[in-house]
Amino acid sequence: MRTYLDCFPCFVNQALRSGRWVTEDEAILKQLIDEVGMMLKDIPLTNTPPETGEIIFKKVREISGENDPLAAVKKRSTQEVLGIYPQLEEMVAASDDPLMTAIRLAIAGNVIDFGISDEYDIGEEIQKTIGKTFEICDIEPFRSAVKRAQNILYIGDNAGESVFDRLLIETMNKPTVYVVREEPVLNDVTHDDAVAAGLDRVASIYSSGSTAPGTILKSCTREFRELFRDADMVIAKGQGNYEGLSTEKRPIYFLLKAKCPVIARDIGVKTDAIILKRSGA
Amino acid sequence: MRTYLDCFPCFVNQALRSGRWVTEDEAILKQLIDEVGMMLKDIPLTNTPPETGEIIFKKVREISGENDPLAAVKKRSTQEVLGIYPQLEEMVAASDDPLMTAIRLAIAGNVIDFGISDEYDIGEEIQKTIGKTFEICDIEPFRSAVKRAQNILYIGDNAGESVFDRLLIETMNKPTVYVVREEPVLNDVTHDDAVAAGLDRVASIYSSGSTAPGTILKSCTREFRELFRDADMVIAKGQGNYEGLSTEKRPIYFLLKAKCPVIARDIGVKTDAIILKRSGA
Repeated sequence: MRTYLDCFPCFVNQALRSGRWVTEDEAILKQLIDEVGMMLKDIPLTNTPPETGEIIFKKVREISGENDPLAAVKKRSTQEVLGIYPQLEEMVAASDDPLMTAIRLAIAGNVIDFGISDEYDIGEEIQKTIGKTFEICDIEPFRSAVKRAQNILYIGDNAGESVFDRLLIETMNKPTVYVVREEPVLNDVTHDDAVAAGLDRVASIYSSGSTAPGTILKSCTREFRELFRDADMVIAKGQGNYEGLSTEKRPIYFLLKAKCPVIARDIGVKTDAIILKRSGA
Repeated sequence: MRTYLDCFPCFVNQALRSGRWVTEDEAILKQLIDEVGMMLKDIPLTNTPPETGEIIFKKVREISGENDPLAAVKKRSTQEVLGIYPQLEEMVAASDDPLMTAIRLAIAGNVIDFGISDEYDIGEEIQKTIGKTFEICDIEPFRSAVKRAQNILYIGDNAGESVFDRLLIETMNKPTVYVVREEPVLNDVTHDDAVAAGLDRVASIYSSGSTAPGTILKSCTREFRELFRDADMVIAKGQGNYEGLSTEKRPIYFLLKAKCPVIARDIGVKTDAIILKRSGA
């Protein structure tokens, strides 16, 4: 997805929100806003938004002097979902359609997105998402693809959300590579976060090489691009991966909640819609 | 009121929204965003927000090549409210407390604010505001001040809203100077807009000299500053006038709906609260 004009005020807002995670010092936050403001002119509308998100978060890391300023937050999100994992497993096991229930739960987990908001109630989100109608639901092609697949590439999104991904991977029960970011960016899932969520028990964990809050193929490793090209089935979670991959040619199953109005419009759905969308040829 | 950090993303958003009133050309709008982005570093937190609003709107005027790009919109707002003026007059006349009803209507009119949103339903807003509880309501000092005043300085805000101001001025029935902006900025009321609303029948219309979407005394004319200092009573409508005048020493009656969360927090009320607040010594 390209950058839309409405992304620009949001970039400044994202800088401010992210900066506040690491400092309350007004002068430092103002400096961050000033730097991002000056940068806007260098962002062409043809870029994908996560490319800008990457630059903004690098500035936040500089300010904080920490490599992973949201480490504690990510740990807390992961622990919270691990705490309810047995109940989630029961929900799937008791369901008439375990795959569909696991997909819904994986989308519910997508609310744990500090790029959008610091506040969420995961229990409430699960309730809402279990009963919600999909605005796009390519479930039949998804079922067939899982059935046929000898290997699945599952591109993760946020820490905490990754615990829900684990449950979906368990439910699909196919050899799976779980893809994480190369470096900490926002609360996106990295290798260590994925291990903390127990993903290593159900998949091999693999870094795309991306340091952006999304998957932008040209900045991923060559090895990842090959995996991406050759996988029998690709599942991409969340907005950042959609923004980075929406125009790629190969079939991808996007699973997300369209929290951002600009992304929702790009997909052609209402804000807060839940989506299981097959794209590509 | 000073500029808060949260005002900065909003400045970029305001540039984009205002730009869209005059063009749909993405390249021109991107250029406007770029210019405002580069400008952020020059805006100190000690400025009042309307000082920045003024610069942004000057850029919008440049792009449009028109002196008053919202002229048609302002005319339509004014005509719409003039169309229901007889009913508004009846509401006040039939009320147990005509002054309070006229104040509520004047606040309802404050929804016509293109700096905040292009969409409003004036009939709905009247219904809501008539029944709403004030979060701050200095009505008794207001009544006494009106009773004692030999002259009132009433600082207007937006075109269309000004028709409601006319009804309040009629109801107070005291010699009144109605203050307008010197030049078109957003949909703020200018001399011509005030005449179109019939303000000349109930008050003398006077420009503050301000070309900002608010009243910033240091950029007003010396004559206006004297009027402001010497008036028996000053009434200031809307957010822009609050932003410009909130730290002035003399008593001012602010009448507004706190549509912006930053302004609401500065006042100490919830977003969308309605306010009749006496400030100053």
